[in-house]
Amino acid sequence: MTDTPHTWFWEHVTPYFVQQFSISGILYNGRSEYQSIQVLDTPGFGRCLVLDGKIQCSEYDEFIYHEALVHPAMVLHPCPETVFVAGGGEGAVLREFLAYDSVKRVVMVDIDRQVIEVSREFLPSLSQGAFDDSRVEVLHVDAKKYLEDTREKFDVVVIDLTEPLEEGPSYLLYTQEFYQTLKDRLTPDGVVAVQSGSTSMVILHGFVAVANTLKTAFPVVAPYLAEVPAFGGTWGFTLSSRRLDPRDLSSEEVDRRLAARLNKKLRFYDGIAHQGMFSVPKYLREDIARSNRIITVDSPLFTY
Amino acid sequence: MTDTPHTWFWEHVTPYFVQQFSISGILYNGRSEYQSIQVLDTPGFGRCLVLDGKIQCSEYDEFIYHEALVHPAMVLHPCPETVFVAGGGEGAVLREFLAYDSVKRVVMVDIDRQVIEVSREFLPSLSQGAFDDSRVEVLHVDAKKYLEDTREKFDVVVIDLTEPLEEGPSYLLYTQEFYQTLKDRLTPDGVVAVQSGSTSMVILHGFVAVANTLKTAFPVVAPYLAEVPAFGGTWGFTLSSRRLDPRDLSSEEVDRRLAARLNKKLRFYDGIAHQGMFSVPKYLREDIARSNRIITVDSPLFTY
Amino acid sequence: MTDTPHTWFWEHVTPYFVQQFSISGILYNGRSEYQSIQVLDTPGFGRCLVLDGKIQCSEYDEFIYHEALVHPAMVLHPCPETVFVAGGGEGAVLREFLAYDSVKRVVMVDIDRQVIEVSREFLPSLSQGAFDDSRVEVLHVDAKKYLEDTREKFDVVVIDLTEPLEEGPSYLLYTQEFYQTLKDRLTPDGVVAVQSGSTSMVILHGFVAVANTLKTAFPVVAPYLAEVPAFGGTWGFTLSSRRLDPRDLSSEEVDRRLAARLNKKLRFYDGIAHQGMFSVPKYLREDIARSNRIITVDSPLFTY
Amino acid sequence: MTDTPHTWFWEHVTPYFVQQFSISGILYNGRSEYQSIQVLDTPGFGRCLVLDGKIQCSEYDEFIYHEALVHPAMVLHPCPETVFVAGGGEGAVLREFLAYDSVKRVVMVDIDRQVIEVSREFLPSLSQGAFDDSRVEVLHVDAKKYLEDTREKFDVVVIDLTEPLEEGPSYLLYTQEFYQTLKDRLTPDGVVAVQSGSTSMVILHGFVAVANTLKTAFPVVAPYLAEVPAFGGTWGFTLSSRRLDPRDLSSEEVDRRLAARLNKKLRFYDGIAHQGMFSVPKYLREDIARSNRIITVDSPLFTY
Repeated sequence: MTDTPHTWFWEHVTPYFVQQFSISGILYNGRSEYQSIQVLDTPGFGRCLVLDGKIQCSEYDEFIYHEALVHPAMVLHPCPETVFVAGGGEGAVLREFLAYDSVKRVVMVDIDRQVIEVSREFLPSLSQGAFDDSRVEVLHVDAKKYLEDTREKFDVVVIDLTEPLEEGPSYLLYTQEFYQTLKDRLTPDGVVAVQSGSTSMVILHGFVAVANTLKTAFPVVAPYLAEVPAFGGTWGFTLSSRRLDPRDLSSEEVDRRLAARLNKKLRFYDGIAHQGMFSVPKYLREDIARSNRIITVDSPLFTY
Repeated sequence: MTDTPHTWFWEHVTPYFVQQFSISGILYNGRSEYQSIQVLDTPGFGRCLVLDGKIQCSEYDEFIYHEALVHPAMVLHPCPETVFVAGGGEGAVLREFLAYDSVKRVVMVDIDRQVIEVSREFLPSLSQGAFDDSRVEVLHVDAKKYLEDTREKFDVVVIDLTEPLEEGPSYLLYTQEFYQTLKDRLTPDGVVAVQSGSTSMVILHGFVAVANTLKTAFPVVAPYLAEVPAFGGTWGFTLSSRRLDPRDLSSEEVDRRLAARLNKKLRFYDGIAHQGMFSVPKYLREDIARSNRIITVDSPLFTY
Repeated sequence: MTDTPHTWFWEHVTPYFVQQFSISGILYNGRSEYQSIQVLDTPGFGRCLVLDGKIQCSEYDEFIYHEALVHPAMVLHPCPETVFVAGGGEGAVLREFLAYDSVKRVVMVDIDRQVIEVSREFLPSLSQGAFDDSRVEVLHVDAKKYLEDTREKFDVVVIDLTEPLEEGPSYLLYTQEFYQTLKDRLTPDGVVAVQSGSTSMVILHGFVAVANTLKTAFPVVAPYLAEVPAFGGTWGFTLSSRRLDPRDLSSEEVDRRLAARLNKKLRFYDGIAHQGMFSVPKYLREDIARSNRIITVDSPLFTY
Repeated sequence: MTDTPHTWFWEHVTPYFVQQFSISGILYNGRSEYQSIQVLDTPGFGRCLVLDGKIQCSEYDEFIYHEALVHPAMVLHPCPETVFVAGGGEGAVLREFLAYDSVKRVVMVDIDRQVIEVSREFLPSLSQGAFDDSRVEVLHVDAKKYLEDTREKFDVVVIDLTEPLEEGPSYLLYTQEFYQTLKDRLTPDGVVAVQSGSTSMVILHGFVAVANTLKTAFPVVAPYLAEVPAFGGTWGFTLSSRRLDPRDLSSEEVDRRLAARLNKKLRFYDGIAHQGMFSVPKYLREDIARSNRIITVDSPLFTY
């Protein structure tokens, strides 16, 4: 038994499915005003940020999640200068934004200041100094309220929120009402990328409902996928805009734009990966086509 | 606590990662000459076949795995008439083969007769009568020995074996030596599909090594992916042939061939899914390009 | 991994402590009007009855629990003729009662008929035919209501209920009000034995509160202990009466009474075991002396 | 889910039984030359010392284990002056020894210096300064070798070793050969206390075999029990001597000796607890009487 791991993190993915990660250290174990926060060290995935018992990212595979979330939108827009992220307190979306020379202003709204502080201390590779960049403004207010009140418009918006838990801080940002607000805050060629939850069959309904709800606000809605091992499978995202469609970009065009715009090398995303991400399996396309669930403030979505 | 599930199946995916599925019944719990065999009922995935503690398929998502394993090879071949499957005792590969009108002869070699018997009794939706089809011949011998001894050649070969465990029955069928034998048993346009294990970063090495080893035997080797939720993420496959490359098929051509050849409707696979499956993320393509691990009888691959 | 067990039963003993038992079969998995009911087969403990996710008894060590629950009371009473059990639907308390030649009438009140039916079918060794004995009357009504309404008095009463869960059927039978009712239903030398929960330090409060609450109704209250491995440790019981104290019985006197009265051999209980059970460790005696928690209908006890 | 614990320690008690403790911190996670060493913080039991994946003691209930291990022997001996402990690196046996005014010399032999250092840093309440007492000598050598080589004799010897794991440092100290050596190192009234493992039915064989093996070396062998919740149930100990029998001490005599000899208050042990500990249930006494297993160097005992 000597070398069998004895300490584990459990994530209840659904009432009927649990993932367990071996842990070698508990670097931080606290609770903010909004949620529980842990930073765990794991032999399999390096350091992991855990909010309300859900892994938000791991050092080993966060590059997949964050590249998948940020770059399709940034590549699709002709020249993103002003960008916005809701959530993403660990700083990795900022880091990806700042790799584009065209970006002049980044606004980040994450209600939970403690997530940012804990991430900067224990997970510095996530932000890589992004919080100190002069183009970045960070606000600890409600993202919904902020977007309703501001008159600013953005070229790219990334919605990088925790899952909509019943007691959690984010469920109102998964509604039709919020997506309407979002559209009003976009420049004419503006693009929105929304992290949309697991596409595993047992908890698919969130991904499908987010896509359908976005369709009530945006003419173009493109669901897409990337496997994030620490999340236990394939993760769903949705790209929305008034007229630009990522499925119209050829693999070669994606590679050309990346080469022209980006000042760093990516590990997950390129033209071929782009093509793979937007080629959604038949049963998922059919599920989305069949679904008529619209998420609203009065009929919110809650995940487990 | 009343409604929390209390009975669970644990799968040790790696020494550092465990998946737990809630179970509502243990329909079969036995041991053959070769492996332990269980059929479990689960609220999340329906009935599951478990060999040596690893889920082989679930009623709810086996269609993804089996369509991904069988159809790219069948679609790539100009006109598959004689087909072969090693393993696959639950009968679903047979079922998919038999949906092609062109198929005249199916040989299945699964060393473990008990897997077939248990599957026919407890998981009849997997084979759907395929074992009774007059085109099918089933043999309970060692697949390696069978292919070495036969003079028959096949248009499509599917290798649907359990993971190569140190004590398990299949590790010699993941070697360069076996892949050479395979090539010799193919017709000139013959295609081989090999299930190649998880592509999760923590256990990626099997997938990469299988692709590299196949390259020593075949001019064309195309790794591809499909998410199988019950397997805890994205699964790897590899298509190999002398000259036909699945990446040359357009999405439209795949749909055309399916419409012309197949006498049933698929749920997972079509032209778009084909394009997604073969568009492998950058880091996986780079891992395969970098790797020089060749699996041989003297240097076998064992997974956890 | 071949021989590692893969299917497990989890029991959440406290929010911070879980026990897991390997299971080889799920013989029954249902839900009555009152609670979930399972019969599990386990390599470690044989068949186990599980109500609302808590192990009620295992074939291998139920003799400890049931001998500890029944015999001290039966031995303390000068000549038990009429006996009563609340709960105990699996039939083992009946079995122990019927081993006394003096017993003429046994009343069992268990509100959940389905527990009895499932136990008779899947756990026949528990009741060993006791339900067919002509001295036994079984009623499926609320035990509290029954004892309030009857005029009958009993020599020995055994309270063998599930833990007082907030949603469960039994919490009102752990109150001062019920214990007063109990006292009124005893003959002058009557003795009551109450299963009183775990005495593990982490969940000790139930055991201590039951003892204190019984003291408000009975002049003599003797807490005692027995280790029941399937319950994960030492279990608490309480013997109460108007004047007879089990701590006054010498080890020899216990053995004499057992020899004179009992028509079967016991495995756990004898004079020495009696002495051990009632010799409670100092810290538990001090906890009981210090506590002033009285359980009432308005201030009920709930365990996890 | 917000407040459900997510990080857990697993202890494989047997292949078929696992205990899980919620953990809030990993204070130390290392490996000495002999074993893995962890100090975990737990909501249920405070800080816990874990060696090779087995909980050795918890802050909350270590008083039960250590009082049960040390005081019966110290009370039984007429006037213990020279005392010895094998193992016990966390320092709590020392602490209990030093509470006796009669004690003039304490020798501790624990092969693993790192256990002592880690315990002094992270679990100071265990030793409470005992390592700095001038009466204490600590040696990091093999206890078996030390006792074979020394000519010193001791009044009380305590064997406080980890379980005899196949790869572990202690299995040779659970043999008939070692117990013969022990006897030779005792003064005429000398008493040996041996921690003897779980008495849970599923892993009883160790406790029974230790008692039987001690009987081949000592005229008086008295097995006894105490519940240690963090160990998951009742724990076994064995007291051996040439002529003094703890079962001959009345409860009152134990209390008298404690009052006369001890300069601190105990929490678990007193006259009544003594009586309870040595009143072993019938089935355990019968198991010991029936067993003929003698542990020798050539036929060692290994636990899971």
